[in-house]
Amino acid sequence: MARRSFWGWGLESDEPSQADREAAAANLSRRYGRQFTAAPAPSLDQLQLRSPRIQPPPALASFCSTEVYDRAANAYGKSFRDVLRAFAGDFPNPPDVVAYPSDEAGVVAILDWASSANAVAVPYGGGSSVVGGVEPPGGDRPVVTIDLAHLDRVLEVDPVSRAARVQGGVLGPALEDQLRPHGFTLRHFPQSFEYSTLGGWIATRSGGHYATNHTHIDDFVESIRTVTPRGVIESRRLPGSGAGPSPDRLIIGSEGILGVITEAWMRIQARPRFRASAGITFDSWKSGYEAARQVVQAKLWPANCRLLDPVEAGSAAGLKGDEALLIVAFESAEVPQEPLIRQAVRIAREAGGRIDDGAVLVADSPGEGDGVGRQGAVGAWRNSFIRAPYGRNLTAGTGMVGDTFETAITWDRWPDFDANVRAAVTAALNDAAGGGSLSCRFTHVYTDGPAPYYSFQAPGKPGGELEIWSAIKQAASNAVIANGGTITHHHAVGRDHRPWYDQQRPPLFAEALRAAKKTLDPNGILNPGVLIDP
Amino acid sequence: MARRSFWGWGLESDEPSQADREAAAANLSRRYGRQFTAAPAPSLDQLQLRSPRIQPPPALASFCSTEVYDRAANAYGKSFRDVLRAFAGDFPNPPDVVAYPSDEAGVVAILDWASSANAVAVPYGGGSSVVGGVEPPGGDRPVVTIDLAHLDRVLEVDPVSRAARVQGGVLGPALEDQLRPHGFTLRHFPQSFEYSTLGGWIATRSGGHYATNHTHIDDFVESIRTVTPRGVIESRRLPGSGAGPSPDRLIIGSEGILGVITEAWMRIQARPRFRASAGITFDSWKSGYEAARQVVQAKLWPANCRLLDPVEAGSAAGLKGDEALLIVAFESAEVPQEPLIRQAVRIAREAGGRIDDGAVLVADSPGEGDGVGRQGAVGAWRNSFIRAPYGRNLTAGTGMVGDTFETAITWDRWPDFDANVRAAVTAALNDAAGGGSLSCRFTHVYTDGPAPYYSFQAPGKPGGELEIWSAIKQAASNAVIANGGTITHHHAVGRDHRPWYDQQRPPLFAEALRAAKKTLDPNGILNPGVLIDP
Repeated sequence: MARRSFWGWGLESDEPSQADREAAAANLSRRYGRQFTAAPAPSLDQLQLRSPRIQPPPALASFCSTEVYDRAANAYGKSFRDVLRAFAGDFPNPPDVVAYPSDEAGVVAILDWASSANAVAVPYGGGSSVVGGVEPPGGDRPVVTIDLAHLDRVLEVDPVSRAARVQGGVLGPALEDQLRPHGFTLRHFPQSFEYSTLGGWIATRSGGHYATNHTHIDDFVESIRTVTPRGVIESRRLPGSGAGPSPDRLIIGSEGILGVITEAWMRIQARPRFRASAGITFDSWKSGYEAARQVVQAKLWPANCRLLDPVEAGSAAGLKGDEALLIVAFESAEVPQEPLIRQAVRIAREAGGRIDDGAVLVADSPGEGDGVGRQGAVGAWRNSFIRAPYGRNLTAGTGMVGDTFETAITWDRWPDFDANVRAAVTAALNDAAGGGSLSCRFTHVYTDGPAPYYSFQAPGKPGGELEIWSAIKQAASNAVIANGGTITHHHAVGRDHRPWYDQQRPPLFAEALRAAKKTLDPNGILNPGVLIDP
Repeated sequence: MARRSFWGWGLESDEPSQADREAAAANLSRRYGRQFTAAPAPSLDQLQLRSPRIQPPPALASFCSTEVYDRAANAYGKSFRDVLRAFAGDFPNPPDVVAYPSDEAGVVAILDWASSANAVAVPYGGGSSVVGGVEPPGGDRPVVTIDLAHLDRVLEVDPVSRAARVQGGVLGPALEDQLRPHGFTLRHFPQSFEYSTLGGWIATRSGGHYATNHTHIDDFVESIRTVTPRGVIESRRLPGSGAGPSPDRLIIGSEGILGVITEAWMRIQARPRFRASAGITFDSWKSGYEAARQVVQAKLWPANCRLLDPVEAGSAAGLKGDEALLIVAFESAEVPQEPLIRQAVRIAREAGGRIDDGAVLVADSPGEGDGVGRQGAVGAWRNSFIRAPYGRNLTAGTGMVGDTFETAITWDRWPDFDANVRAAVTAALNDAAGGGSLSCRFTHVYTDGPAPYYSFQAPGKPGGELEIWSAIKQAASNAVIANGGTITHHHAVGRDHRPWYDQQRPPLFAEALRAAKKTLDPNGILNPGVLIDP
């Protein structure tokens, strides 16, 4: 079976060759006018990991590993910092044991063992965290990572209610593969889709494919089954309820500190057959975001309503570099979408957008829709989106620094927010790296505000990347919080965002959450340091 | 200023005359073929309330009352049982003091006093609870009810983000009156709209006007400010966030056990100008609910998608009594709605629905829309909906028993659920009252299931109503829970639904909630017995 790369995005077979990496370094050299070199990728047999501080008891040994590969591959998520450290072979604090339970009883047994051994238990889905959410905490307690890769099945499909009971460890493509024969899809496509899991999406409040209306995984959850150290919490399958605070909403976003999500009933949908899309250009970033606001406030609920600033529209969609691009798309399994796209285009044009009538793509006959949304500027952007996580495999260790940060902010504060965040990050880029690039797109838009997603890149020197990255990340996070945003719209908090999350969440809420955790996890074994202090 | 009736729905000026009540009794006599009589309505000066067990300290006396009127008017919600007890002048356990703070500092002062005096504090919005949510608990602790009537202002309107900062005690009409000059509306119209408050809606997860998509008040909350006995919890204004479990979702549905909601930023919207509606008839209940399912699963997101069973379609909308009625309506501030209603009608017709093309009402020119949705069968139903709570004022004390219960259930289980619930309630009606009527409508529909709302009526004898009511309520609640529903979709839990809520919510969730409450309300002063045991 194809194995995941222990250091990069994707499988071992996705790892770039040395020639690929050298070509990427040459590209960087041309772009920045100085020499970049590609160090060789790490090999497993060079790794020297600390000896495991704990061994699984015989009854659990059959599904536990203390092998170097398993411990290294589960030591980090996939943030810039993670990939850089893994590329450097820098694994000072790997998990001591990686458990691969094949069923819920296995999860229970691991938690029981961790409790009795005073070990830390870190739930691990696809390992795509970019916030230190699956990294073992420091300290003396041994760490058992619970890799849910074998809880990978769709257990039940209810076609009448359009819902499915799904195990927590299933990766995105495997989930879709199992729903497809029934004619359904969850249609939740975060950028990490290939290597993230249902349980991970729920635990981190993942933001999905849709730019408007129901898009956070929160909206698709019908009920959740969670194994806590005290036992199982399972909510009732209900389409809606007003019975007290939602039990599901305590688990959604809990990032593995309350329990392990083993199953959930998820709302699924028929596969779209009708599609329409339009890529609308604007003379300025400002006229683009005014149009995005007006489109979303019209409550047409497009599946896509993504705005690229002139930098991103240039690099990712081939525009001239001085225009913003608004990508609007509608889709439906049941209903032609032309009337909706025409209204969205009308609103966008009234706000200054330009698009030829002929460039509005409509596929309102069933079967015709497959190409729509995959053509022209829209299609170019989409491919770039899906491939982005592989890019780091090419440039890791060359000295290049690149990362993203994302947030949400109300429309009234957005223009100042954007100006202040850009100023702070630009200053940090200049100070730390002598310059760099910064761009922004909206990944999601709400009636009350956008979710902007910023990307930055800066040329550094091999070995100096983390210092530069840290300075920029600090500046960006400080500016996001000081200007009223959330430290994360869909990347989660983990360990890395804690300083800013601690400023954002109400202190008494943190106390209430700590009390809830103490009730469910009295020995504090689950993911200590994530979200709250032990 | 007009004063609320201390026993019935609405103002004192809404109380029916003795002649009105006698006419209602005569109607019942004709309907049931036996004599009903209208006892005289209670008068305030007949009431003998227990002496207050506590007196407010001098510093708080200016906004506290121990008057008979205030204590009686705040003693109950407005359930069938509440109105019956109040009509009978039966007030054995009124609050000892009613406080009317005019600002947040007043709320803090009352909570501080209650803590130090070991008193119970009951937050009180519009007093429309039908689940015992505002009724003082029994026992020896004195009770202070915090009536938020003076926290009734819209403090800020943000027209760009379409959001408003609103105090928790504002009643529905006053909220709309303050938004209207700005061109906005919250457009949250529960049946209790006239006498329920924003804070009450948030505390009880109120279900609003819309039948699909965003309708629960949960969806309109941008941030909440809550005074707990330990201090204020205020969440950040954010259009979306993935930063840990949502702090707002702990407060939403907390029914006054964690704190007093003093303010919230709410998502508002432009007032609709484009409207379309259709009343579609079906030969059977089954073909009607199949159509409702198909319409909602097409994700057209109609503002209204209410299905009336043949009994309700007959009594409330004037149909023949053997047809179901599906009311579908769309509305928008920005976009013509004809294409959407045409699609919905197409789907409903394919599922067996009947409507003439000319009966599909469309007002797609601005200004034209005011009449649409207020005509024909649709209009008849709407008027009946708004007036329903006043009906009890006419029949209280005549011996008539009538109440509603509501739930939600997934589509796969719905047909059996409906059959079993009807069988159980019909048996209870027969056993307890020798018969009666039972009907159902869908108030909300989701892609994964409907929210059915049942109404029952049975003729009893004066003084015997509560025994009949209790037998039917027990049978209904048992059947709802045994067949997989929620004990409440939008009426809340309060004290009355506790036995069934306790079966529904996961036990470990209740423990976590109790731990959170202990953190925020260490002396257990807030609404003890609601949702969880102290």
